[in-house]
Amino acid sequence: MKNNKIHLFTLITLISTFIYYQKSIAQSEDSVMIKKLFTDALTNGESYENLRYLCKEIGPRLSGSDNAQKAILWTKSLMESYELDSVWLQPVMVPKWVRGEKESAKIISNSGKTKVNVTALGNSVGTGKKGVRGKVVEFSSLEDLQQRGEEAKGKIVFINCPMDLSLLSTGTMYGNAGINRHKGPTEAGKIGAIGFIVRSLGTSMDDFPHTGATQYGLNVPKIPAIAISTNDAEILSKELQQDPGLEFYFRTNCEMLGDVESYNVVGQITGSEYPDEYIVFGGHLDSWDLAEGAHDDGAGMIHSLETMRLLKKNYQPKRSLRVVMFINEENGLAGGKEYARLAAENEEKHIAALESDSGGFLPLGFSIDATPDAILNIQSWGQLFQPYNLFYFKKGYGGADIGPLKNQDVPLIGLYPSDQRYFDMHHTAKDVFEIVDHRELELGCASMASLVYLIDKYGLK
Amino acid sequence: MKNNKIHLFTLITLISTFIYYQKSIAQSEDSVMIKKLFTDALTNGESYENLRYLCKEIGPRLSGSDNAQKAILWTKSLMESYELDSVWLQPVMVPKWVRGEKESAKIISNSGKTKVNVTALGNSVGTGKKGVRGKVVEFSSLEDLQQRGEEAKGKIVFINCPMDLSLLSTGTMYGNAGINRHKGPTEAGKIGAIGFIVRSLGTSMDDFPHTGATQYGLNVPKIPAIAISTNDAEILSKELQQDPGLEFYFRTNCEMLGDVESYNVVGQITGSEYPDEYIVFGGHLDSWDLAEGAHDDGAGMIHSLETMRLLKKNYQPKRSLRVVMFINEENGLAGGKEYARLAAENEEKHIAALESDSGGFLPLGFSIDATPDAILNIQSWGQLFQPYNLFYFKKGYGGADIGPLKNQDVPLIGLYPSDQRYFDMHHTAKDVFEIVDHRELELGCASMASLVYLIDKYGLK
Repeated sequence: MKNNKIHLFTLITLISTFIYYQKSIAQSEDSVMIKKLFTDALTNGESYENLRYLCKEIGPRLSGSDNAQKAILWTKSLMESYELDSVWLQPVMVPKWVRGEKESAKIISNSGKTKVNVTALGNSVGTGKKGVRGKVVEFSSLEDLQQRGEEAKGKIVFINCPMDLSLLSTGTMYGNAGINRHKGPTEAGKIGAIGFIVRSLGTSMDDFPHTGATQYGLNVPKIPAIAISTNDAEILSKELQQDPGLEFYFRTNCEMLGDVESYNVVGQITGSEYPDEYIVFGGHLDSWDLAEGAHDDGAGMIHSLETMRLLKKNYQPKRSLRVVMFINEENGLAGGKEYARLAAENEEKHIAALESDSGGFLPLGFSIDATPDAILNIQSWGQLFQPYNLFYFKKGYGGADIGPLKNQDVPLIGLYPSDQRYFDMHHTAKDVFEIVDHRELELGCASMASLVYLIDKYGLK
Repeated sequence: MKNNKIHLFTLITLISTFIYYQKSIAQSEDSVMIKKLFTDALTNGESYENLRYLCKEIGPRLSGSDNAQKAILWTKSLMESYELDSVWLQPVMVPKWVRGEKESAKIISNSGKTKVNVTALGNSVGTGKKGVRGKVVEFSSLEDLQQRGEEAKGKIVFINCPMDLSLLSTGTMYGNAGINRHKGPTEAGKIGAIGFIVRSLGTSMDDFPHTGATQYGLNVPKIPAIAISTNDAEILSKELQQDPGLEFYFRTNCEMLGDVESYNVVGQITGSEYPDEYIVFGGHLDSWDLAEGAHDDGAGMIHSLETMRLLKKNYQPKRSLRVVMFINEENGLAGGKEYARLAAENEEKHIAALESDSGGFLPLGFSIDATPDAILNIQSWGQLFQPYNLFYFKKGYGGADIGPLKNQDVPLIGLYPSDQRYFDMHHTAKDVFEIVDHRELELGCASMASLVYLIDKYGLK
């Protein structure tokens, strides 16, 4: 009996040692592969040059524009150059909204006329040639507008809600203040206002207005909607205190032209062991029209394309990997919805969906919208990321384009770069190639590639 | 007996609960204080405006220059405005090196003349009016020069050693490649070369040469030394392959004028319980002359000044806190040495020294040059920093200016911001205010203030 116990003990020890040893070997293999991916991205990477091309040779690419089509064809040919197993376009109807001539605006008060930096909100109707002129009522938030909106009947609504800079996450600030831009014009339309102004959703004080989508509610008058720069919001607010009867004039020339055909661009490596299990990763191809969409979401496109290039070159995936350039994230999400619809229709089993749509900044980790088990599973790989200063693996937001896959219980994972600099230039004329750092961009690519590699190799509980 | 056991068990449980409860209260108090420091820095902070003033109203501030003196007086008056217990200047002799007229250089090869972007290395002798012209021998490293240096006798030495971009830390790359700039001119002088060129210590390919100090060895001929931009290093190397007999011409107008009096600037809050225990934190006041020294080390100065402002406003320290603007880090370290000399002479017990000299980028944590116990002690506070995405608390480099305190067994701690963008512009004309992000700067201030607070409150084992 005693001997048996000793044998049992020895056996357990041996098995434990064996398991531990196997795990160490696996960890060490993974370290080697991840190091390989990072080294390739940092020393032979193509991400920075690809981003330069996208920004400088193509440029802004609003849904339905000629430039969006150019970017569709360019990313398709780039995927083809990687010699993936298949590359295709996924047709989808997208709204075509155009800005028209540049906007203009001024404050007309008892101290004179003051020019104001404005931008029409995406999806907004224009003012017509005459523009809109009227008195202004300032509100501190959408809630404030909902409570005492009747004061603004026949006037222009101005929501002046600064971002809450005390928060660490600028993304959270944006989420909190974003409702003013999204829903403000509808609320203002309901109470009979003639125009809508929102303070730009920006973290710095400057003269750059931030555009972004708004949505009109059903059966509500559509009134012209603009954003003004943070500096101008302060000026308007101060002038209103001195002269509550001042008038504001603005002219916008934008219009919604209706739906046109466009495409998601999809590239696939078919898995060697589980070809029917998909891991999808992507960014959105469309951008606002004010600049090159370098961070939003050029960086996310490039992160995803480079992830595919890195994995194709360095690894043989067991599962099917898909890179997707989603169309129309900015003003409709048609691409993301269509991708999810087709995935359901074709009964494709997606074991994970990753998105990069938070800029090309220093990656800190991943934000995970999945079951607690899946989150723990990803966190168990944390040590492998520590040499690259990635420590953030928390429950959180995945991404807009992959969002529609949530109904199919797909774990959604967002690359999480530092967002401190993002809302200084998000949706403004400042979002150009020059403000993206090559090493920060490259690290984002390697981070995404490393997580896709681990999910492919081990699956995701 | 059984009852006694139960009593003992109850007692232990009660004591444990009490200790746990006390610890929780302390942790919670600390969380509240740290949140206060971050909120103050992010919403009422003065760091960004102070950095603007330093960069735009004062500008470059090389040791011994008029601008350095202006910055000394300005930081002194800023400290005085915080109503510290004492503020003083600590006299110290510093070398006064001047660049003189802007440098010029060209390659003269069988394909024609090519203009080259150069900068004299700090402390270098100038070429005289005629400049230096000669054949060029390329070396891959200092070691390569040491091995086959005789080939360059009567010629110009060119060390073309790119940074090792496969490493994660650009600081490590810089450390590895820095020896070429520091020691290259001496080695080249030894073997009878007539001039020295180093490839800029930069992580990006561009036209900006990076300056930085070099040192001449004793009894070695002092030959003129320059850095060329990374793009130009590639060009020169390629041209040398095509035409090994090409000539290089450069003219520099710099000279070392000898020592002049300057100052460290010191501000102190005297501790309420342990006034004879000091916690010192600082950055260096001098900068290179090519730009505004915004990241190097304007950000470190401002981090430290704002740390003092935040603590003075929000906390009553037990120990004596000292903020120091060290002079002459870039080309001599006279300030750091003098501070340490006086600390020893006055038998001041420094329990910790912190420095910020890695730029005003996103803070990731702290790099600690101290005993394993002290490192563990700091790591035990890690959880308090997690809400701010600070995860890096590792053994490493403290800082140049606080380095001389190491002989007195002082734990040295460097603020550790992400260094990915640092060596794109370090020591170049690009190091200006506009490339510092306000939130990243503010987070650095609050991070430093939080660690000083914890060290003050709990001491450091």
